[in-house]
Amino acid sequence: MSIKAQENKGINGIITLVTDFGLSDPYAGIMKGVILSINPRARIVDITHQVPSYDIFAASRIIESSYSFFPLGTIHVLIIDPGVGGRRKIACVSACGHIFVAPDNGVLSRVIENAGEVSGVWVENPSWFLHPVSKTFHGRDIFAPVAARLSMGLDMADLGPVLDPGAMVFLPEDLPEIKASGTISGRVVRVDAFGNLVTNISRQAFRKAFGKDSEKTVVVRIPGHEIYGISDTYDAAPPGALLALFGSGGFLELAVNRGNASDLYHVGIDAPVILDRVKGGQVETKA
Amino acid sequence: MSIKAQENKGINGIITLVTDFGLSDPYAGIMKGVILSINPRARIVDITHQVPSYDIFAASRIIESSYSFFPLGTIHVLIIDPGVGGRRKIACVSACGHIFVAPDNGVLSRVIENAGEVSGVWVENPSWFLHPVSKTFHGRDIFAPVAARLSMGLDMADLGPVLDPGAMVFLPEDLPEIKASGTISGRVVRVDAFGNLVTNISRQAFRKAFGKDSEKTVVVRIPGHEIYGISDTYDAAPPGALLALFGSGGFLELAVNRGNASDLYHVGIDAPVILDRVKGGQVETKA
Amino acid sequence: MSIKAQENKGINGIITLVTDFGLSDPYAGIMKGVILSINPRARIVDITHQVPSYDIFAASRIIESSYSFFPLGTIHVLIIDPGVGGRRKIACVSACGHIFVAPDNGVLSRVIENAGEVSGVWVENPSWFLHPVSKTFHGRDIFAPVAARLSMGLDMADLGPVLDPGAMVFLPEDLPEIKASGTISGRVVRVDAFGNLVTNISRQAFRKAFGKDSEKTVVVRIPGHEIYGISDTYDAAPPGALLALFGSGGFLELAVNRGNASDLYHVGIDAPVILDRVKGGQVETKA
Repeated sequence: MSIKAQENKGINGIITLVTDFGLSDPYAGIMKGVILSINPRARIVDITHQVPSYDIFAASRIIESSYSFFPLGTIHVLIIDPGVGGRRKIACVSACGHIFVAPDNGVLSRVIENAGEVSGVWVENPSWFLHPVSKTFHGRDIFAPVAARLSMGLDMADLGPVLDPGAMVFLPEDLPEIKASGTISGRVVRVDAFGNLVTNISRQAFRKAFGKDSEKTVVVRIPGHEIYGISDTYDAAPPGALLALFGSGGFLELAVNRGNASDLYHVGIDAPVILDRVKGGQVETKA
Repeated sequence: MSIKAQENKGINGIITLVTDFGLSDPYAGIMKGVILSINPRARIVDITHQVPSYDIFAASRIIESSYSFFPLGTIHVLIIDPGVGGRRKIACVSACGHIFVAPDNGVLSRVIENAGEVSGVWVENPSWFLHPVSKTFHGRDIFAPVAARLSMGLDMADLGPVLDPGAMVFLPEDLPEIKASGTISGRVVRVDAFGNLVTNISRQAFRKAFGKDSEKTVVVRIPGHEIYGISDTYDAAPPGALLALFGSGGFLELAVNRGNASDLYHVGIDAPVILDRVKGGQVETKA
Repeated sequence: MSIKAQENKGINGIITLVTDFGLSDPYAGIMKGVILSINPRARIVDITHQVPSYDIFAASRIIESSYSFFPLGTIHVLIIDPGVGGRRKIACVSACGHIFVAPDNGVLSRVIENAGEVSGVWVENPSWFLHPVSKTFHGRDIFAPVAARLSMGLDMADLGPVLDPGAMVFLPEDLPEIKASGTISGRVVRVDAFGNLVTNISRQAFRKAFGKDSEKTVVVRIPGHEIYGISDTYDAAPPGALLALFGSGGFLELAVNRGNASDLYHVGIDAPVILDRVKGGQVETKA
C-alpha cells in the first residue's frame, strides 16, 4: 500500500481527530503512536480533544462545522464513546467525499442528515485491530489502526458488512421553533472560548421566518436583555456591549465586543433565545 | 545525515514530547522550532504538555503507558525538570527499541524498571547544544537540538560518556500492599479527564492476590463507598453509578458511567482503595 | 508551485499559528484544514492558541520571543483580531528572514521594533481568499489560504499594495522606568504556567541601570516581599522559597522553586516590581 495506492482511492493521508479525551492524559498521543506505527506517512490533525465528556450532541455539531474545510479524501475519527466495549457498533461512513469512523451513537447525525449519498460499513473485521482489543480504549485498539489502514488505501469493504445509514442511531434534530406569529424560539447550544453564545438558529431558519434583508428589523431576546437588529461584525457595538450576529458556522451568536458575553450576562447553554419582528419597521442597531 | 542514515540506525524521525509546560506559553512551540531548524523532516508528536508542574511521578507513569505504542526507533523527550540549570544530569537512554532523553531525576524510573537491556549516555557534549545555553530552558537549548540530531541518525555515543543505568536517580516504586490476609491496599494515583480514579493496583497484583477469574468475588472500598465485583466496561452500571474496572493501561479504575467519579464521590489523588475477597463467593456486579 | 518553487523563494513550508481561539472550539482545526486543502505539504506548528482573548499585548510578546527559533523562511500567522470584519487591515510583513501575516492592530509591534529592514504588503487581493469571505472568521477565509499560498512560494507582491511599516498600528512600548536614582520600576506582564511572574525588565535594562555583574548587589521588591540578589537557576533557593532570575526570554522573573509564585504570594499581572542597589555592596542570595 504505497502513496500511489492512496491516490488511486482518493485518500489523501490526512486523519483528523475529534475526542473528549482532553490533553492532560496520554490517550490522544497513544492513538497517534498507533497510527504512525501503521502508516508513518499519515498526517494527523487535531480538530479538538476537548469535547465535553460524553457530549455526543456537541461533537456532532463540531464535526459538521469542520469536515468540509479539509481536503476530499480526509478520514475523520470521532471518539465520544461512553458505550465503549458494550453493544454499540462502530461505523465507517463515506459522505460528501470524506470518510468518517465513529461509534454508532448519533455523533454522525448532523453530517449524514446534511449529506447527499451516504454509504458505509460496520467495522467488525478484527484483522485490522490492535490485539488484545481492550473493552475500555477502542480509540487505541480499533479506531486508530482502522483509520491508519484506510489512510493507506484499505477498502472500506474490507472492514465489515455494508450498513444501512437509515438504521444508524440518530440524535433528535435540534432546530428552533418557528411559531405561527413568526417568532423564532431557539436556545444557546454552545459557549465558545470567547464567551460567545452560539444558538441553534441558522441563517436559513432566520430567512424562512423573517425573509431576506430583515436583519435590522428584528429584536433578539435573552433572559433579562434584548438586542435590536443583527450586526455584521463583532466590533459593530462599542467595547463591552452585547450584540447579535451570524457567526462563521452560519448560526446566530450573541457576543460582546472585546468581552465575554456568557460571563457578563450570566447566560449559558440552554438559555432561551427569542427573535421577533420589531413593530414599525427598521431600527438602528443598538449597542 | 540523510533519511537513509536514519533508517540505517533504526531511527524513524518521530520525536514525542512530554512536558509540564502547558499550552498557553510558547515553550513547546519554541522547542518545535528548534527541532525543525535542525531536522526539517522530524515528525513531532505531543504526548502531553499538561503534566502537573514538577510532577515527576505523574510523568513517569505517562511515558511508561505510552511509549510502546509508537514505532520502534522513536525518540521520546521528557521535560519535567525543576532542577534545570543545576547539578542534575541529562540522560539519553535506549530501552526496548526506543530512545529517551530526560533529566536524571527519576522520570524514566518506570520505563527502565520494566525494560530488559538498557544502555545510555550522559548528555554532555556541547557540540549539539544551542548556544548560549541558558540555565532556565534546557528544553530549548539542549533537549530539542539533541533530539533533532538523534532523529537524523546521530550516534548516542557522540553525546557523552556511557552511563550506568543503576547509578541513575530512581523514584520509589509505587505498588499496592498485598497483606497476609489477601487484602490489597492501594491508592488513587491519577484522576483522568473523565474523572476516572486510576489506582496503582495492576491486573497482575490483583491476580497475585486473588487468583484468576475472581473479578466477581471481590469488594472494592473507597472512603464512604464500596463496589461489589469488577466490571468489564464503563457502561456496565447504569448512568451515574460507580463501578470498578481495569482500564486500558492495566490498572484498576473507579469510574461513573457517563459521569465524573472524582466530582460525584469527592475522591481524589491519594485516596485509599482497598480490595477484599467477598465472604461466601460470587456476587452480582452491583451498581 | 512545487517544493522547488518554495526553496527558490527561501520558503520552508512551515506555518506557525498564534491565536486566542483556544482548543475547545474547532476554529484552529478548521484553519489547518483550509491550509492543507491548498498546500498538502505544509507543516503547521501551533505556538499557542491560548493567548488571553483579544490580548494583543500578550500575543506581541509571544511572537517576539518565539519566531527566531524557527527556520528562516517560516510563515507566522497571528490571529488576535477583535476587529475582524471591520476597518482594520491585514498585513503581510517580511522581517529578519521570516514572514508574518497578522491584522494591523499592533500585534507585530515588538517584532518590527526589534527588526532591521522590514518590508510588507497589505493583504487585499481576493484571488487568494476563501469565498464567500465571512466577516467573523478571517482566520479561515483569509489568513489560512494566504499563508498556504505563501508556503508554496506565492510572491508577497501578489497579495496587495506595498505598505509603509511606519504607518502600521503600533502598541506603546512597555519598558520599565529607570529613575535618576538608579532604581528600576517595572511590572509583572505575564504569569506563566508554573506561576512564574515574568516582568518587563530585560537584562539590557538591568545592565544599563546597574552595570554588569551586579546581580548580587540588588534588591527586588514586590508588594509585601523583597528578594536580595538575582539567582541563576530555579532551584537556587530551597523548595517553596521565592527567588528572582532572568528567564529564557531575557526578562526578570520571580519564581518559587517547585512552587507557584503567583498563587503563593498572591501577585499577578500588573503588580509593581522595583529594583534597587543594595547599600553597602554584595549580599548573599537570600531564599
